[in-house]
Formats: sequence, structure tokens, C-alpha cells
Amino acid sequence: MDELKPIQNTGLRGVSIASTKISDVDGAKGKLIYRGYLAKDLAGQVSFEEAVYLLLYEKLPDADELGELKKQLISQRALPSELIAALATRPKDALPMDILQAAVAMAAHHDPNAKIHSREAASRIAINLIAKFPTIVAAWDRIRNNKEPLEPNPDLDHAANFLYMLNGVIPDDEIAGFFDTCLLLHAEHSFNASTFAAREVASTKAHTYASVAAGVGSLSGALHGGANTRVMEMLLKIGSVDKVEDYVKNILATGGVIMGLGHAVYQTDDPRAHILAPMSKTLGERAGDTKWYDLSVHLEEVAKQAFKEKKEREIYVNVDFYSATVYYYMGIPTDLFTPIFAIARIAGWAAHVIEEQFAGAAPKPALYRPESDYVGDYCGPDECVYVPMDER
Amino acid sequence: MDELKPIQNTGLRGVSIASTKISDVDGAKGKLIYRGYLAKDLAGQVSFEEAVYLLLYEKLPDADELGELKKQLISQRALPSELIAALATRPKDALPMDILQAAVAMAAHHDPNAKIHSREAASRIAINLIAKFPTIVAAWDRIRNNKEPLEPNPDLDHAANFLYMLNGVIPDDEIAGFFDTCLLLHAEHSFNASTFAAREVASTKAHTYASVAAGVGSLSGALHGGANTRVMEMLLKIGSVDKVEDYVKNILATGGVIMGLGHAVYQTDDPRAHILAPMSKTLGERAGDTKWYDLSVHLEEVAKQAFKEKKEREIYVNVDFYSATVYYYMGIPTDLFTPIFAIARIAGWAAHVIEEQFAGAAPKPALYRPESDYVGDYCGPDECVYVPMDER
Repeated sequence: MDELKPIQNTGLRGVSIASTKISDVDGAKGKLIYRGYLAKDLAGQVSFEEAVYLLLYEKLPDADELGELKKQLISQRALPSELIAALATRPKDALPMDILQAAVAMAAHHDPNAKIHSREAASRIAINLIAKFPTIVAAWDRIRNNKEPLEPNPDLDHAANFLYMLNGVIPDDEIAGFFDTCLLLHAEHSFNASTFAAREVASTKAHTYASVAAGVGSLSGALHGGANTRVMEMLLKIGSVDKVEDYVKNILATGGVIMGLGHAVYQTDDPRAHILAPMSKTLGERAGDTKWYDLSVHLEEVAKQAFKEKKEREIYVNVDFYSATVYYYMGIPTDLFTPIFAIARIAGWAAHVIEEQFAGAAPKPALYRPESDYVGDYCGPDECVYVPMDER
Repeated sequence: MDELKPIQNTGLRGVSIASTKISDVDGAKGKLIYRGYLAKDLAGQVSFEEAVYLLLYEKLPDADELGELKKQLISQRALPSELIAALATRPKDALPMDILQAAVAMAAHHDPNAKIHSREAASRIAINLIAKFPTIVAAWDRIRNNKEPLEPNPDLDHAANFLYMLNGVIPDDEIAGFFDTCLLLHAEHSFNASTFAAREVASTKAHTYASVAAGVGSLSGALHGGANTRVMEMLLKIGSVDKVEDYVKNILATGGVIMGLGHAVYQTDDPRAHILAPMSKTLGERAGDTKWYDLSVHLEEVAKQAFKEKKEREIYVNVDFYSATVYYYMGIPTDLFTPIFAIARIAGWAAHVIEEQFAGAAPKPALYRPESDYVGDYCGPDECVYVPMDER
């Protein structure tokens, strides 16, 4: 990390702009750390709710603390009836991420905490948003399919309750557990584009809803959260294992991109991919058809080999590569993959908004306000002289 | 501008992160340039619509070009009935900026261009949003006051039509002209926090609605667009010219802030303030009461003097300082001052989203993705060892 090189038009890539205590991504070593813990050590050991506690309150909870958090989350799951009414006015073909962004902004309208600038209010909003994200995504999927949204089930944990609200069926423990781990693995990833957007908005002292709505907008981009949907679309397009070689050859020849390969930060395997891949395999076996898993594995091998031979560089799978088939095997519509990413990442966004506004690891001037280099040359080096319209 | 100093925890202040052809803010000289033209030269000469043309299409329009743009804007002003229906579900005490953010996100649901990633689609969305911002703000003010929203009046220009939709009265030419100039002066200001937020979201290839919703969220912050409302609240709190000295003395003694003074970029008078101050005076004279203008002028003098004496530095008024009383004299509710800022700034946001996605002045890697410095020391220099809950 070199802070001293020119950073204009680099997308701030490789440039450290702030201190944080929330998480660390060591791209060279392939390490992802949440508040001191390796995410891979937590995966399968702690629930998403425990990870939420860790991210928001800086330590793993004891049983009482976790019980209290779960109670708060359960009590905040239901959407105000006016918010359901607003969703019912929305065109059925609206993009789910666009619905989520609007719903986050609308959630502010129902919460008096939005008018209070304090750490306590921000923490209450964090719980409210973490609790409501699954309900919003599931409610919208049912509304657009002309079904009634389902009430949250207070007997179910966070992950299981989402799958229940989406499908109307209580998932078995293995599926719920896998989905829970997926949420944990997507919960936080330092200054990625959506988190940076949320922090940027929060830096003006805007409230958490306004900030998180920016995060949702950023995550909706095809280059960011949209990538997991595009991985599945790619796999469906390839269609079968025997088409993989031709597909990769064609992509390399035409300068295209293989979705789910490469990452802005990792220069080795994304540690999350190692946990997601076996899940995909198990889910394929459960479904009696490992085709999509097998296709993914083969695509990874062929692409890695081709990059080494043709481009003389290593390429690695990222978190999107195997999460795509995991969600697909769970029967989740592909255009909900990115909203599910958001259901997880809201935990990180909320922690970052609180850190930005109330607990910065180091003092910094309020408000991100960079400079830009004006290269307009509309009238040469001088300013243009105004000319009235009839003389133009 | 020094690109070589460390930039961690500086809020990117003074650091150039990108090239742009849209505008230039010369903080030392107090110059604001839109696509080659000094904004102060355009003020009072060109309409907001002409400035929109300049910002979007890089030149001042001829009569035909302006006529075509105005026609497009007028045709896009009305809100879909489903959007009005959604606004009608919102709690009446919702903050107007929070309503605007939700409405921008919802506007995407009605526009097939949101699903097309092209410069043409982005330009169409730009016109749609510029046209609809005034309608959204005026409709919400009427809905929250239990009045029917008014249909846009196609015979009126952009500025006059907003005041008509807000008040139900067609403004006279002087008022409409002043408001038009206010919009022009707030239309664009390079990489300010809200524009940077919009560009950040756009850099992921998210569409213009998602990006602009982030801009609205950022502008809602008390440190950014929220400042003009807070200037007026401050003036109302001071109450009369004879209280100014005590107010300034008290603020300096308690380390408080005088709203509307100081700026992240300008080290001299904000060029926009020079145009807004005489407007405020004229509007006061028209109202037969220059009290708020007089109070502002006196506050500026006393504060400048006090800063020089007590803090040994110059302080200058910014754009918010005199725009507050201009809007107040026009009878606009103080909590609409920031939405009005947005009605103007949407022109700049839209131009920046297009530049970010399709016309970058210099090539840059897609997606703003900075690094952060992890300073979590939860388990000393090492990673924490996971311990099951019952052993914690």
C-alpha cells in the first residue's frame, strides 16, 4: 500500500483513505478479518446474528447478549402496513435492488430515530434495517408474483425466517445453516464500493437510512453486487460442462470477462470461496444433480489454466463464483442474489456508518470532499466569454 | 493541490482524485466555472434550462436546441399516478429530503431506461429527473399539508412552474427570475460530497436513479445541503439585529459554528454569495421589511471582524448564507431549502454520472474502491482465537 503515489483517475485503488477497526482484507494472504476474527473461523461456528453482534458491538456475545439481540431483531422484522401499501403501488417488473433502495429510504419515514443524530439512534436504526431487509426482499418477491407477503415467523432465526418468508416453507436445518453461513460470509468487507458510498453519505451527518440507501444503490451496480447474478446467468448460458473450453477460449479471444473471477483486492483465492464451494457441492448432491457445481469447478480449472497460458497471470475465484450456484440450488430467483448480498452486507454498512459518524478510529475532518482536476478546454486556456443566444 | 501527501483520515480534503470537464472550483480565486463559463457571468443571463443544456451537452444552446430541451423537460414533468399513490402512503411528518430520496429510487421503477446501460439511456434519465424533481418536492409539500398536488403548468418555465406547483400562484417575473438564478447558481460544484457520492455509485455501473438517490442522501446531511436550512434557523433564533454581537461572542466562546460561514474549498468569498445578497435585499424591500437581510449583513460583518480579532483568520460567507433569506422571503418553508438545492444540483449530478460512466476525461479503473488501514487491536497484534459461546 503506497500512499504517496499520484491517485488521480485510479478509482482510489490501493490507496488507504481511512482507519477502521471493523474489518481487514489482506488481499495478498487471502485473509478476511471481522473485528479480530478470521471470517473463515467464524463460518459454520457462529450464526449471522452473532456476527451482527460482533460487528456492531466489537465482541462476540455471551448467551444473554445474543438472546437480547435476537429478541430485538425479531421484534423489528415486520414492515409498517403503509410500507407494504407503498410497495403494492410499484410496477411488478421493477428491479428488486431498485425496490430495496426505495424501501430503505421509505423506512426512514416511519422511524423517529431518523431525526436524531446520536450513536444510540444510529444503533437502533442498524437493528431496524438488519431486521427488515429480509422482510422487504421476501415481501417484494411475493408482491410481484401476486402473492400476499407472509408475516415473519418469530420462532425462526434470521436466515431460516427469510427463506420461510420467501417460499412459505420452513427450510430444514442444513439449508438454513448454509444460508446463515452465506449471510455471515457476505456481512462485511471493509471499504468496498457500497460501504464506501454509505460512509461517504454518512460523513455529511446524513442519517443511516440515507447512507444505507446509497450502499444499496452502489451494490446494485453490475461491477459490484450485481456480479453474483451475472455468474449464474453465465453458467446458465454455458449450459453444460462440455461447453466450458469453448466458452473460455471465446472470452479470451474477444477480450470479455469471466464473471466471478478476479477481485479488486485479493491476489489469491477469496477465502469465502473455499467455504461456499463445498456447500454448492452438497446442495447439488441433495438435489440429485451436481451439474451446476461441476460446471463451476470445471470453469474455474479451465479459466485458471487459460489465464496462466495466454495471459501469463494467475486468476482466482471470488465470493460471487460459488455463491451463485448455492443460491440457485436453494431455488432462489437469480435476480434476488444481489438483494441477498444486501441482506448480509447491511450488517457491515451499519457498523461503518456508526464508525464514520461516532467512533472514527482516528480523527478526520467531517465530510469526504475530494478535489478534481479540471481539464475542460472549451475556450482554450482562458474562460469562455459569454455570448447572448442570438449572437451564438 | 498536493497529491503526494498522506491522505489517510483527511476526508480526501485537498486531494485530486479524478479529472473532469464539467466544472472547476478555484477556491483561492473564488472562481466557479461551468464547462468553460464563469457561473457569475451566466447568472441573470441564461435560464436554468440553458445551464442544464450546457452541463449535459457541453455548450450553450441555440434557440432551436433550447426549445427542444424545454419541450422534453415539460413533457416529463408529471409524476406517474402510481408514484403519487406511493407518496400518499408516506407519513406526513417525514423529512422532505427523505421523501425525495425515496421518490428518486421509485422513479426508476417506472422507467425502462433504468434497465439499459448506455449513454443515451443515461441522458434520457437525466432529463426525466431534472424535469421531475420540482414536481416531487411540490407534490410532497401539498400532500403533507392535505392538499391535492397540482398538475405542472406547461406554459411556465422550470423555475416559475415549481413555485406555481408549490403555492398554486403563478409568480411574477422578478420572483421567477430570482429563483431561476438561484437554481443556476446551485446547479453544479465539482466533486462536492453529494456529487462524489453519486459518482461513486455510478462507478459500479449502477443506473442514474440509484446514483442520484445517493446524491440526495448525501445532500440531506447537516454538513452539506442541510446547511441552508440551518442558516435560516440560526437567523430566526438570533431574531433581531441588536442580538448579533452577543450571538457571535457566545458562539466564539463556546466553540460553536456560525452557519453559512466558511467552506471546504473557498478561501475567499463564495462567488455565488455576491449574487444572492442583492436578491435578498430586493426581496426584503419588496416585502416592506429588510429585517432578515439586514440581520444577515450585520452578522457577516460582525463575524468577519470577530474571526479576524479572536482567531486571527479571515472567514467568508458561502452560498448558503444569503440563499436562506432569499428563499425565506419567497415564502418557502425552511425545510424545503435543501430539496430546492437538490432541484438545482440534479443537473450537475446527472452530468457527473454520465461523465463517470461514459465520458471520463481520463481513463480510470472502473469502480471507486479505496483501501483502509485496519487498526483493530482486539487480540493484540494477532488474530483472535475463536472460542465457543459457553467458554466465553
